[in-house]
Amino acid sequence: MIGGGKNAFIGAVHRIAANIDGQIELVCGALSSDPETAKESGKLLFLTEDRNYGSYQEMIEKESLLPVDTRMHFVTIVTPNFAHYAPAMLALEHGFHVVIDKPISLTLAEARKLEEKVRETGLTLCLTYTYSGYPMVKQARQMVKDGAFGEIRKVLVEYPQGWLSLPSERDGNKQSSWRTDPARSGISGCMGDIGTHAAQLAEYISGLEIAKICADLNIVVEGRPLDDDGNVLLKFNNGANGVLVASQIAAGEENALKIKIYGEKGGLEWHQEEPNTLKVKWLDAPSQIYRTGQGYLSQAAQYNARTPAGHPEGYLEAFANIYRNFASTLQALLAGEIPTADMLDFPGVEDGVRGMAFIENVVASGQSDQKWLDFKV
Amino acid sequence: MIGGGKNAFIGAVHRIAANIDGQIELVCGALSSDPETAKESGKLLFLTEDRNYGSYQEMIEKESLLPVDTRMHFVTIVTPNFAHYAPAMLALEHGFHVVIDKPISLTLAEARKLEEKVRETGLTLCLTYTYSGYPMVKQARQMVKDGAFGEIRKVLVEYPQGWLSLPSERDGNKQSSWRTDPARSGISGCMGDIGTHAAQLAEYISGLEIAKICADLNIVVEGRPLDDDGNVLLKFNNGANGVLVASQIAAGEENALKIKIYGEKGGLEWHQEEPNTLKVKWLDAPSQIYRTGQGYLSQAAQYNARTPAGHPEGYLEAFANIYRNFASTLQALLAGEIPTADMLDFPGVEDGVRGMAFIENVVASGQSDQKWLDFKV
Amino acid sequence: MIGGGKNAFIGAVHRIAANIDGQIELVCGALSSDPETAKESGKLLFLTEDRNYGSYQEMIEKESLLPVDTRMHFVTIVTPNFAHYAPAMLALEHGFHVVIDKPISLTLAEARKLEEKVRETGLTLCLTYTYSGYPMVKQARQMVKDGAFGEIRKVLVEYPQGWLSLPSERDGNKQSSWRTDPARSGISGCMGDIGTHAAQLAEYISGLEIAKICADLNIVVEGRPLDDDGNVLLKFNNGANGVLVASQIAAGEENALKIKIYGEKGGLEWHQEEPNTLKVKWLDAPSQIYRTGQGYLSQAAQYNARTPAGHPEGYLEAFANIYRNFASTLQALLAGEIPTADMLDFPGVEDGVRGMAFIENVVASGQSDQKWLDFKV
Amino acid sequence: MIGGGKNAFIGAVHRIAANIDGQIELVCGALSSDPETAKESGKLLFLTEDRNYGSYQEMIEKESLLPVDTRMHFVTIVTPNFAHYAPAMLALEHGFHVVIDKPISLTLAEARKLEEKVRETGLTLCLTYTYSGYPMVKQARQMVKDGAFGEIRKVLVEYPQGWLSLPSERDGNKQSSWRTDPARSGISGCMGDIGTHAAQLAEYISGLEIAKICADLNIVVEGRPLDDDGNVLLKFNNGANGVLVASQIAAGEENALKIKIYGEKGGLEWHQEEPNTLKVKWLDAPSQIYRTGQGYLSQAAQYNARTPAGHPEGYLEAFANIYRNFASTLQALLAGEIPTADMLDFPGVEDGVRGMAFIENVVASGQSDQKWLDFKV
Repeated sequence: MIGGGKNAFIGAVHRIAANIDGQIELVCGALSSDPETAKESGKLLFLTEDRNYGSYQEMIEKESLLPVDTRMHFVTIVTPNFAHYAPAMLALEHGFHVVIDKPISLTLAEARKLEEKVRETGLTLCLTYTYSGYPMVKQARQMVKDGAFGEIRKVLVEYPQGWLSLPSERDGNKQSSWRTDPARSGISGCMGDIGTHAAQLAEYISGLEIAKICADLNIVVEGRPLDDDGNVLLKFNNGANGVLVASQIAAGEENALKIKIYGEKGGLEWHQEEPNTLKVKWLDAPSQIYRTGQGYLSQAAQYNARTPAGHPEGYLEAFANIYRNFASTLQALLAGEIPTADMLDFPGVEDGVRGMAFIENVVASGQSDQKWLDFKV
Repeated sequence: MIGGGKNAFIGAVHRIAANIDGQIELVCGALSSDPETAKESGKLLFLTEDRNYGSYQEMIEKESLLPVDTRMHFVTIVTPNFAHYAPAMLALEHGFHVVIDKPISLTLAEARKLEEKVRETGLTLCLTYTYSGYPMVKQARQMVKDGAFGEIRKVLVEYPQGWLSLPSERDGNKQSSWRTDPARSGISGCMGDIGTHAAQLAEYISGLEIAKICADLNIVVEGRPLDDDGNVLLKFNNGANGVLVASQIAAGEENALKIKIYGEKGGLEWHQEEPNTLKVKWLDAPSQIYRTGQGYLSQAAQYNARTPAGHPEGYLEAFANIYRNFASTLQALLAGEIPTADMLDFPGVEDGVRGMAFIENVVASGQSDQKWLDFKV
Repeated sequence: MIGGGKNAFIGAVHRIAANIDGQIELVCGALSSDPETAKESGKLLFLTEDRNYGSYQEMIEKESLLPVDTRMHFVTIVTPNFAHYAPAMLALEHGFHVVIDKPISLTLAEARKLEEKVRETGLTLCLTYTYSGYPMVKQARQMVKDGAFGEIRKVLVEYPQGWLSLPSERDGNKQSSWRTDPARSGISGCMGDIGTHAAQLAEYISGLEIAKICADLNIVVEGRPLDDDGNVLLKFNNGANGVLVASQIAAGEENALKIKIYGEKGGLEWHQEEPNTLKVKWLDAPSQIYRTGQGYLSQAAQYNARTPAGHPEGYLEAFANIYRNFASTLQALLAGEIPTADMLDFPGVEDGVRGMAFIENVVASGQSDQKWLDFKV
Repeated sequence: MIGGGKNAFIGAVHRIAANIDGQIELVCGALSSDPETAKESGKLLFLTEDRNYGSYQEMIEKESLLPVDTRMHFVTIVTPNFAHYAPAMLALEHGFHVVIDKPISLTLAEARKLEEKVRETGLTLCLTYTYSGYPMVKQARQMVKDGAFGEIRKVLVEYPQGWLSLPSERDGNKQSSWRTDPARSGISGCMGDIGTHAAQLAEYISGLEIAKICADLNIVVEGRPLDDDGNVLLKFNNGANGVLVASQIAAGEENALKIKIYGEKGGLEWHQEEPNTLKVKWLDAPSQIYRTGQGYLSQAAQYNARTPAGHPEGYLEAFANIYRNFASTLQALLAGEIPTADMLDFPGVEDGVRGMAFIENVVASGQSDQKWLDFKV
């Protein structure tokens, strides 16, 4: 693991997610860019001294010299955005598979280079777009794919959070500091941090691609250098229209990602904060409530749940699904087998490239007086 | 009553709404543009023969010749949009107060003339933007006005319906026929029919005015001459941003008007389909559930409810609130008294003008390549 | 109308309910047991002086002397329980149909005498068990009747209110005063006031009859002479079991009547505070959400709604359904026609007798050390 | 781990729960009563051959001979009820701490012996009453303890499941087979399996003890030897009343444990299927929605959550809280420190004794004609 030392949020989440299914063990780490903090953090996580590294460079190099059956199988990168690319590239160059927290990099150019390197090496890169890991998201995607709703006509996705309503970055809040800093976050704040999740979810479930956008990006809390809020009109490649709203100044909201999709015959609705329920609506019949863990669900939805219906699974389990599918894919590859479609169902480098393209397109549109811009990748 | 004969939807709603509080009696009518249908419909509603008129012109003229204490006090116009202006103008010219179903007219120009005539005559014109009649909408408005949430930053309003998902106007559906016909509906379909409700609600609760718009209007069902769907980016006069979504092809939705407003300190959320609940959210405290009929509500919210908490009030009661407040205003005026603020709390001719301006602006923006257009009234 | 003068709660509700559909007109009244209050109240409701009576005796006698086409068609009795029987009997004896607010009388014996008189006279007695007037309650009843769930196995009904959590009757609250006074309410407080509603709803939807009970009645607020809370185990005539909970000291609850019924193949759930939604559950399929106003509903459910789906109907509309069906029945009878099943769908004198039996049985069981008592009518 | 081999449900849940926080490692197992199945199961879980035992006796004896820093720290028993006592006793006798899935044993007598042995040895026994591990259950308990609601007056707990609606035990379903078999489950089916959870939750949150009961136990699916459904009237030691409903034939329900508690000033409501929300109701103020992960929660609620608000935590995390708190207690004890109150917050042997007493009392009451029986421990 690279990053994720003391006080880090997402690093701890990654460790829990990797633990849940008992397939992955944390064997080494370079847990902070500060060597001392890195080593202290490693001790707290029971890393052995010889594999508790002071820097990612040291870790990747030393691990690559260990015997094949001893060395780490992959690296997980949980640093702020600006520190994704270099260790990812180094790991790939040394033959390690990679897990990266989204967004994949600081710029689209970096993402493209990673994509190339992945293609070149044949290694696997997994990107933790957590929300696509939920069982009911899988169910939604499958129903759309099966044509249950006919042609998709409209996609409404919103992701309101309230935690940046106040300028907490000025009070030393570590999470808000790097997310509002262009040097560490990139050219977008809110759209990069959570807008990308919303866009990925919309495309993942609908099976469509965003083709045109018209963005209104806002800096609501005065003095911030990056957007903390935004609304985007969308056109998809099949002609469907949509809206994407992302905000970190929606005071009183927690992590309220919601999506509604409408087709010719019906629609669906899913809320991340109550993730085990998928509402399915029909033109002339009662709405239905699909629920995680039920026997009537699609294979993909069943594969990604661990308990019977009524035993709620949450964010950590969704996250764990990504890790488990990735790990199962690696195990299959190690065993010389072909991974199943279920194993391969995790976001990869292409999602990373599209995510960075989303950021660059949305910022360009936000600065333009023209209504519609083509979405360029 | 003008319009609202057999098979009409909104006419029946108006009659129930007017009945509920026992203050208003239907004394005469010209219930259809077809004299025969008009008279048949009048019989079914127990109109006496002499006041069951064949046309609105006849009704207005004959009623104006009756003694003051016998003749109708006001007319209600529940015809399709294109037939609002002429009878309204005639009624005002003959000294009658007027209730009109929204939108007020076919064009902004007509609305302005009605506004002038109202100003000139001192008569009262009431416009049935039903949704502003709900007690919890009053509560929301009051809390915003009281500054409970600080400065308003973001307004998200959506109004999805699914009933025009299929081209039912081609199968002779009366409701969909006139709503998709420019000659009877005006220059917009969905935005005129329900977008105006959403815009009025957003401005009513927030106390703000839409200042700029960027609209994406869509004809989703092929062959329709008018928009049946649309998404609009908004800027308000205080700098707040927002989104308005209206759709009549959101398959599986009923009448799912929802609004979320965020300020510096918190926000609120209201759903028309569960209208007795207002969710109030705070930055660092538990959300609260405000409920119709409770003693802790504002005066305005209490004034517009009839039963104790837990006895759900619905659409017809909200509609009735508009009629009751309008009727109370007339009674006060008749009695030579000054109507209270509670009595005067119903939409009027200014709302009608803003509504028509919304339609014209949104259509202009929908046709423009420029991102933002100023909202002109 | 007998009772329902100034400051009365349920009288105003009855008037609104009777107004809604424009079929019923208030033509006379004896609105209070105090002649002066009665007359003052009558003036406020626009009663003409000659039909604004000082007592119910006077009203019934004088009205019965009026010409048939002028005199009132029925009386509505909205007094406290102890004053139901005498005016109802007098009205029936003078040939008037009767509407009574539940429970029908002070004792089971009185209820039986009314039943006899109704049978003898052939007149119609309507009892306003409001909750059976909701469209989704009709839908639930129909689905059970149609065998959608197979044999019914379990019925859980609860009716928690919080408004008697404090001894407000000692502070002069009129509503709580009579409801906690045995002389005016009868032998039970909470069970008589709202337990009867719950029992009627359970039997109405399930089509079953309570056969055995085991009751725990409680006086929670010290010093009250009557139960303000209770829990009852139930056995139905088909062997199904159940629980009925009623409480007026459930602090923080409004009027939270809920029912869940389970059969062999599935179940249903309905909440009065969100009355337009009926949740239908299945053994091996997604739950369904049935909604008021939809075209897929049963005839009975559609007959009792006024607006399209998504336009919420509430308590007053449910109440109005009882009045409208009763009025339609009277109109049919007056016209020499046979009322349809839809018209006849309102609670009558038999429901009144069963309600009084419920009160007497539940009080007897509450006082007994024996677990199960047979439910005697 | 004892039990929990291939195809077992709860064993897998225990392993995930123990994994989540990275504090516990599965080092040995006797995963089935059948030695061959045990060993096969152990291989699948990566147990080393020398610690993959064929029987629990062998495991406990051999592990107790290993050096202190190598041998297992505790055993987890996840067998059917009848096979809890013997291995638990053996483990305690050999100096091992114990985790047992609830209920603790087959009979109250066994539970008492375990209680004695725990007292005698000073070892720790943890019982996985999962539902008390949820953060919002902790919050509820704390608010009651702090007197937020005043004296508690009423407790309504229900636990409906539908999975035994059909006689699936006759079709070879492993889960239903042992749960409906007295030899393996004990004297109660539904009440032992889930009624105990409901009772424990009610006592845990309310801080009260059940003092009297009146039970109606039912065998709804013909031919079953044990109750599959039941309703119980309750009296608590402070005089509060209550109802406990448990059913496994509530067709269409998943795992719908719900609790409502009312005090003098307000009440609370929690649903296991949406566990991150606690509804708090007040006499004269808006209801509040408390949410997992928020900064305004009590220490106990915050201690038992892993992610910020809006990242839903579920059943596995609640389960993991019990393991983590137990493990933290052991670590503190190993380190010679005094465990904090937060660490010690997991169900223990006393809960096990009360659980078995609940089963025996409820069965006795179910068979009695007397209404109330004292709850005897």
